[in-house]
Amino acid sequence: MEIYINPSKDQWPAILARPETDFSRLRDSVKSILENVKKRGDRSLKEYTLTFDSVDLRELQLPQEEIFTAGDKLTEKLKDAIATARHNIEKFHSMQMPEDMVVDTMPGVKCWMKHEPIERVGLYIPGGTAPLLSTVLMLGIPARLAGCREIILCTPPGEDGSVNPAILYCASILGIEKIYMVGGAQAIAAMAYGTETIPKVDKIFGPGNQYVTHAKQLVSLENVAIDMPAGPSEVAVIADESADPSFIAADLLSQAEHGTDSQVILITIQQEIISNVKKELEIQLADLPRKDIAEGALRNSRLIYIKNQEDILELVNAYAPEHLIIQCRNYAEIGKRIRNAGSVFLGPYTPESAGDYASGTNHTLPTGGYARAYSGLGLDSFMKRISYQEISESGLTSLGATIKTMAEEEQLMAHSNAVEIRLRKLCENI
Amino acid sequence: MEIYINPSKDQWPAILARPETDFSRLRDSVKSILENVKKRGDRSLKEYTLTFDSVDLRELQLPQEEIFTAGDKLTEKLKDAIATARHNIEKFHSMQMPEDMVVDTMPGVKCWMKHEPIERVGLYIPGGTAPLLSTVLMLGIPARLAGCREIILCTPPGEDGSVNPAILYCASILGIEKIYMVGGAQAIAAMAYGTETIPKVDKIFGPGNQYVTHAKQLVSLENVAIDMPAGPSEVAVIADESADPSFIAADLLSQAEHGTDSQVILITIQQEIISNVKKELEIQLADLPRKDIAEGALRNSRLIYIKNQEDILELVNAYAPEHLIIQCRNYAEIGKRIRNAGSVFLGPYTPESAGDYASGTNHTLPTGGYARAYSGLGLDSFMKRISYQEISESGLTSLGATIKTMAEEEQLMAHSNAVEIRLRKLCENI
Repeated sequence: MEIYINPSKDQWPAILARPETDFSRLRDSVKSILENVKKRGDRSLKEYTLTFDSVDLRELQLPQEEIFTAGDKLTEKLKDAIATARHNIEKFHSMQMPEDMVVDTMPGVKCWMKHEPIERVGLYIPGGTAPLLSTVLMLGIPARLAGCREIILCTPPGEDGSVNPAILYCASILGIEKIYMVGGAQAIAAMAYGTETIPKVDKIFGPGNQYVTHAKQLVSLENVAIDMPAGPSEVAVIADESADPSFIAADLLSQAEHGTDSQVILITIQQEIISNVKKELEIQLADLPRKDIAEGALRNSRLIYIKNQEDILELVNAYAPEHLIIQCRNYAEIGKRIRNAGSVFLGPYTPESAGDYASGTNHTLPTGGYARAYSGLGLDSFMKRISYQEISESGLTSLGATIKTMAEEEQLMAHSNAVEIRLRKLCENI
Repeated sequence: MEIYINPSKDQWPAILARPETDFSRLRDSVKSILENVKKRGDRSLKEYTLTFDSVDLRELQLPQEEIFTAGDKLTEKLKDAIATARHNIEKFHSMQMPEDMVVDTMPGVKCWMKHEPIERVGLYIPGGTAPLLSTVLMLGIPARLAGCREIILCTPPGEDGSVNPAILYCASILGIEKIYMVGGAQAIAAMAYGTETIPKVDKIFGPGNQYVTHAKQLVSLENVAIDMPAGPSEVAVIADESADPSFIAADLLSQAEHGTDSQVILITIQQEIISNVKKELEIQLADLPRKDIAEGALRNSRLIYIKNQEDILELVNAYAPEHLIIQCRNYAEIGKRIRNAGSVFLGPYTPESAGDYASGTNHTLPTGGYARAYSGLGLDSFMKRISYQEISESGLTSLGATIKTMAEEEQLMAHSNAVEIRLRKLCENI
């Protein structure tokens, strides 16, 4: 843990610097996976699954039966929790349904926008020991609400060749029926290019390791859209003397347990909190199953005392954290002044884990300072906007000269002619 | 011109295939420009400007005086046209101002979204013989309406070391005061990394040649957002027997004059139109100043007869054209069924050039089939969304078990603890 007491502003960039992810050592292997899947399709997917997941698959696609009976293997308690989370996520995301808008920008010049779902989307759910069921909800619910016609899901099989039933259950309640047992860069390639079994999609969503992230980057330069650039997860906590150090420590640890590369930052206006939080971290850390990971992340954590609130706001807006927890007496006021952050958690009883799972907001958020320019996932991430216009005869008569003048200034005579030829026709008809 | 009469569906992909852009031959030079600008800043920008634009700049930044007096060099006619276009573009884009939304997903669990402008945006305007003044309006107006704090503009100087006054005038009326005379990949690098003179921005917008496009791709993998992937411009026209062949030809030519790599497609339900349009193309082509370019593009154009309307819709939605012009009797009905397109132009008196310049819609649109997943530029391209939540004591009491159950299923105990430690505190307080 690095502790900074009133660092000067010129120190901030160094203190808040994020580790740069260097993909160069992965590049060749990711590229060769992409090319191989593009050329050899299903065969290469099965080979990679044998190599990386030690599973010899006969079929890439999971049988429907297995998806629809997955719930039988879950406790009622877990199914109830999933139902509550689903309810809240649906409520928050359905509020985001965009409205088509229309305006006459001039008499006779009618312009509007129509929103359409992206037709084919691919959701990636990483494997590993823990089943990321919450991510199935966070991606699948807005995809369904947006009205995407085809929603497919790729996830690597476990060592026993099966997929965790909690993942399958979440998919099944959302009506996601096309699930493929393939992970890593090869899954991204399959969804980007399509194979004999796996359909090509228009946009790929979901988290993953560095191979997955880099594969998403590379295919996004070709022919498919991706949700957003992804990096290690982050939290910043702003606290004043009203904050409970045990709450702060718990929030920092819940970020730290994600991975040793997680970013964990506390910024406080009261210097004493730092030592109290440190004590609490030690106590709470002792019992964590993922203690080693959390300890690794905490080694890079920053505990910063800054003596005035204006500077704290400036620092946080410059850092643009993925998650921002505000545990201050005046949290509402500070919250209003946040300009750059993925998601903001206000007040003592709003832990980040609420947003990670069940309050309703999306947990797919911009990391690495991307919150300066990107939004978290929303319903609009699964839709696109088409602009329309219809110009009447009189509308073109009014607007024609403007178009012609500008087109001619840009030396694009054919653009001008497309108006001129119509105006001439209108004169003939008079 | 390739003519296809009722091609079978399995031929469609080949007929509608877009040429792949191969950036590999540019990669090394673009990369070296990016690295050089990152390391050497302004000095390298001046060197590149001398090499590529043959101008030896003393200052990269244009004097304010020159920006604010640029209007003196313009005709009143052009200024009037710019004013009309500005009015319409402002009207269409201000309608898009998003509303912050709030909902209690459960009692005591309040979630909302706040929209914030992206603070620092960079607009790129290409050089060349024709001044792309319309692009200054299409990028600058939504940036201004969104409330971006810092808007900078980069454009290469002409041979005489100056910038076209029409570009400067459009910038000046929008209050864009930081204009830098630098173009190409080096301008993109300057805005992505920042130099002594040019501030780093959060998002880069604007068209450009392949060097600019590839530079935008590469910096988007690092630390800056970009508007969208860019490729050669495209138009598809759907026509029936009610369409005027001279209008169709004019619309096809106004796309063809953009560049020899422009994509120009006519799909018609009436076979005769094809020969009539061909005749009209020859007539209108003869007088065009950019005849050679248009001829080049027309060589790759496709004129397709398809005998039923359902198939036409299927083909167009599969192709996802940047611009789609519908000159059919039932254009309104067809328009409603378009699912993939950048911008749609309905009816005989709605040429694409209206949207390129002055009707109000944005002319920055997804090409290359990206309309399947991307929207054209809008006000939201200059803003981002931040999600918020505030949970009351009773809210966490209701939701706590759900969060804990899901977190524990994902084996993230610290996430569960962040709830547990708060619930315990609430019990103590009772």
